[in-house]
Amino acid sequence: MKKFKKLEPVDTGSLVDKVEIRLLAFFKENNLKAGDAIPKELEFAESLGVSRTVVREALLRLRTLGLVESRKHRGMILKQPDIINNFERIMDPTLLGEDTLKQLFELRLILEMGMADFLFEHKSTQDMEELEEIVAAEEAIGAGKIWFSLDKEIAFHGKLYEMSNNTTLLKFQNLLLPVFDYVYLKETKNTGIDDYHYSTGKFVTHRMLFENLKVGTPETFRNAMRRHLEPHFDHAFKNGAK
Amino acid sequence: MKKFKKLEPVDTGSLVDKVEIRLLAFFKENNLKAGDAIPKELEFAESLGVSRTVVREALLRLRTLGLVESRKHRGMILKQPDIINNFERIMDPTLLGEDTLKQLFELRLILEMGMADFLFEHKSTQDMEELEEIVAAEEAIGAGKIWFSLDKEIAFHGKLYEMSNNTTLLKFQNLLLPVFDYVYLKETKNTGIDDYHYSTGKFVTHRMLFENLKVGTPETFRNAMRRHLEPHFDHAFKNGAK
Repeated sequence: MKKFKKLEPVDTGSLVDKVEIRLLAFFKENNLKAGDAIPKELEFAESLGVSRTVVREALLRLRTLGLVESRKHRGMILKQPDIINNFERIMDPTLLGEDTLKQLFELRLILEMGMADFLFEHKSTQDMEELEEIVAAEEAIGAGKIWFSLDKEIAFHGKLYEMSNNTTLLKFQNLLLPVFDYVYLKETKNTGIDDYHYSTGKFVTHRMLFENLKVGTPETFRNAMRRHLEPHFDHAFKNGAK
Repeated sequence: MKKFKKLEPVDTGSLVDKVEIRLLAFFKENNLKAGDAIPKELEFAESLGVSRTVVREALLRLRTLGLVESRKHRGMILKQPDIINNFERIMDPTLLGEDTLKQLFELRLILEMGMADFLFEHKSTQDMEELEEIVAAEEAIGAGKIWFSLDKEIAFHGKLYEMSNNTTLLKFQNLLLPVFDYVYLKETKNTGIDDYHYSTGKFVTHRMLFENLKVGTPETFRNAMRRHLEPHFDHAFKNGAK
């Protein structure tokens, strides 16, 4: 009996990839915007010369990504994608690699150093009152303590993100929180909590940052924030060798 | 003849949503990591009491998001998600809303203000040589010009992102580029190019930023970068009223 070479299955996966890319290009070329109706599955299948199944799977992907939406009996329309929601679903620190985690941690330092101008531009009297309450509350609990506390950090810095008046940034920070949590816990486990003991000489407290935000400038605030984040920068650079 | 109330179709969409959430929780609870095998479609269907079709669609979503991967004849495994690739597919400026575009534009200013420490930590001789070449090339073309040019901005600032030694940040910047492009074009169309004419008094050039990076400190560099970005900050704050 004749021995056949093995018949490899057709790589439908890459076909769906191709169709996905072609659909995205089609939306762009036709300058379609959120809310615009798009052709039917069957029309796409005929134009592209592929099966409806392939088109359906490609459209399903775009639905998963939040780029298209099915409306009952009225076909599909383009949708304004929610970039944060997409990020959120995949942002699982246990699945992200060490490099990515480290880089996301650095990204936090960059964001907090960079947002000073927006804080000064948008801070309101109410914001400042709330920020002072957060500072006062942590002083009441942790009198005399200069240890690192993740909860306190989140309350204070979370309020700063809120004050930046940029909801995309705020949501981005919120979904990065599990990453920070994960990195902190791993580090404190590996190195012992003593590594997070701030040297008293240069340590800038939340109270000092608050006062700076009240009477300082974006420039003085950035310098204070840099010193406040000193242990984290040290940590980033210590492990930063390529 | 008895008149029936309308029989609404079962909302299978939300069932897939529920199964997606349950699967993600299952991975977490079992502390599964990238590379770990996961149970079969049929097992999930039986445990969850739903059809295989529903499980298949939920798994397809997770594949679209890059969280699981099918291996031929060996079932599915968890995968390290590529957060940037996911972002990339949905980052279409024509589909994003005005608010989101404005916020992403602000995010760029925040990133460039915030990354100074990483530039000073990681800059190499080769980096500085390449950066100087970029500066020299634009000086050769645009001698005497102080107008805004998007291409020049991208070459210079793109190199800075590269020098930050953070590939997540670099990729993030790359996929934000169409957004900047879009915002710039829209603005120059609306306001006329004159709005991008830098006041000569406080204008810091790319050459000055380069020199600062060579002999300055993160602190002096941030202040120089702030002045360099002055027109963009002005623009952000001009339209910044809530």
